[in-house]
Amino acid sequence: MRAKASMDESEHRFSEADRRGLYRAIYERRDVRSFFKPNDVPDDVLARLLDAAHHAPSVGLMQPWGFIVIRDGQVRQTVYEIFDRARLAAAQVYNDDRRAIYERLKLAGIREAPLNLCVTCDEKTARGHGLGRQTMRETALYSTVCAVQNLWLAARAEGIGVGWVSILDVDELRATLGIPEAVVPVAYLCLGFVTEFGAEPELEIKGWEQRAPLAGLIHFERYGVTDEARAEQLLRSLSPKEAVEDKS
Amino acid sequence: MRAKASMDESEHRFSEADRRGLYRAIYERRDVRSFFKPNDVPDDVLARLLDAAHHAPSVGLMQPWGFIVIRDGQVRQTVYEIFDRARLAAAQVYNDDRRAIYERLKLAGIREAPLNLCVTCDEKTARGHGLGRQTMRETALYSTVCAVQNLWLAARAEGIGVGWVSILDVDELRATLGIPEAVVPVAYLCLGFVTEFGAEPELEIKGWEQRAPLAGLIHFERYGVTDEARAEQLLRSLSPKEAVEDKS
Repeated sequence: MRAKASMDESEHRFSEADRRGLYRAIYERRDVRSFFKPNDVPDDVLARLLDAAHHAPSVGLMQPWGFIVIRDGQVRQTVYEIFDRARLAAAQVYNDDRRAIYERLKLAGIREAPLNLCVTCDEKTARGHGLGRQTMRETALYSTVCAVQNLWLAARAEGIGVGWVSILDVDELRATLGIPEAVVPVAYLCLGFVTEFGAEPELEIKGWEQRAPLAGLIHFERYGVTDEARAEQLLRSLSPKEAVEDKS
Repeated sequence: MRAKASMDESEHRFSEADRRGLYRAIYERRDVRSFFKPNDVPDDVLARLLDAAHHAPSVGLMQPWGFIVIRDGQVRQTVYEIFDRARLAAAQVYNDDRRAIYERLKLAGIREAPLNLCVTCDEKTARGHGLGRQTMRETALYSTVCAVQNLWLAARAEGIGVGWVSILDVDELRATLGIPEAVVPVAYLCLGFVTEFGAEPELEIKGWEQRAPLAGLIHFERYGVTDEARAEQLLRSLSPKEAVEDKS
């Protein structure tokens, strides 16, 4: 019986080869701000990235997303200036060592990346007929973020680096890209082929922050009921190999 | 020169086999509300799902997420009652045919799925030192949604169905799960092995909504500058094979 149950369970499981590709994308994806090459992203690659995004889940199947494809150098220069003003303003909250690290960080590749993409959310779209949104209005925004993450993983598999720029004055960005009041610019992304994908997140390499241990983020039945020994028992099967991929 | 450039470009691209696994997960992932089997999700599978979530991008590497693992039948029953009250209240806005479809929809598998997972966001965590959040505070929530999407794709590869329930009164959910004011319950998920993954989204099969054509969602350089012919030219390489996977 036990063996039979196991077989049934794994009925819809991917083969080891197919699982490998997905987990590689998850573990080797990086937020890329440096290393962009000038080569343009070909249409067939961009098409696959947009189609991956378009197959994200969305509340009520509302598909609230839009994709502004930006290649124009003048538009990217204007967005870069918006970014740079915000970057300098944000620096003011950091002191001493933290400020020194901040100033060494490369925070965006807006001008170097040949392709920028602004992913928007139209919360007012009639698609989806409001299903699931009476209790949680944010779900339209959340759906759009799922689209961004699909695109980000597909980009890694295609060898394309993606950086998400959030240090931007949203009103100035709206004005530059003609985004109406009812539409939210959720993500401003820089895309391009890269000379390398970092072995670890750039913020870790440059000493800004370290990855938190997963065990401490697991709660049992209720928030706040953490139990590190129990969480480590749950996670014990994560093999050293996965810990290595972690770093690759 | 051209050939050399192409070789360089594809330097970090995954092999066709590795790309296949990722795209399968993206195209075959479903929002699952029916078809759950009672078999428990083993620890090793849950560990891989949580580790996939934990490798999502996060602004400033703040990793604001938390995972409440819920297996207790009484807790799931209470959440089910919260859901069912919200489901009935939400029905009031629909009339006639739309109301009839709404009432036929299966909107959550809270009690049938053996494992529920509430993914939370601690916007106040000191991790990340506020990087990237002065201009866009929502990015902590967005990071948490990226973690949900990583988990959802990994679940598909493991043969685990995931449904995201947003028809819930958030205050009642907070009270039931002991979630403090400063922490946001971003996603309430139902997980389990399933008898099938739908060939198409359930909301499409049941006549609630259809997938929008991607070409109409692409804007060039500025929002509102759509151009269907140009967008279709951009997307022309998406092969009929991918259109088929779309449905599988």
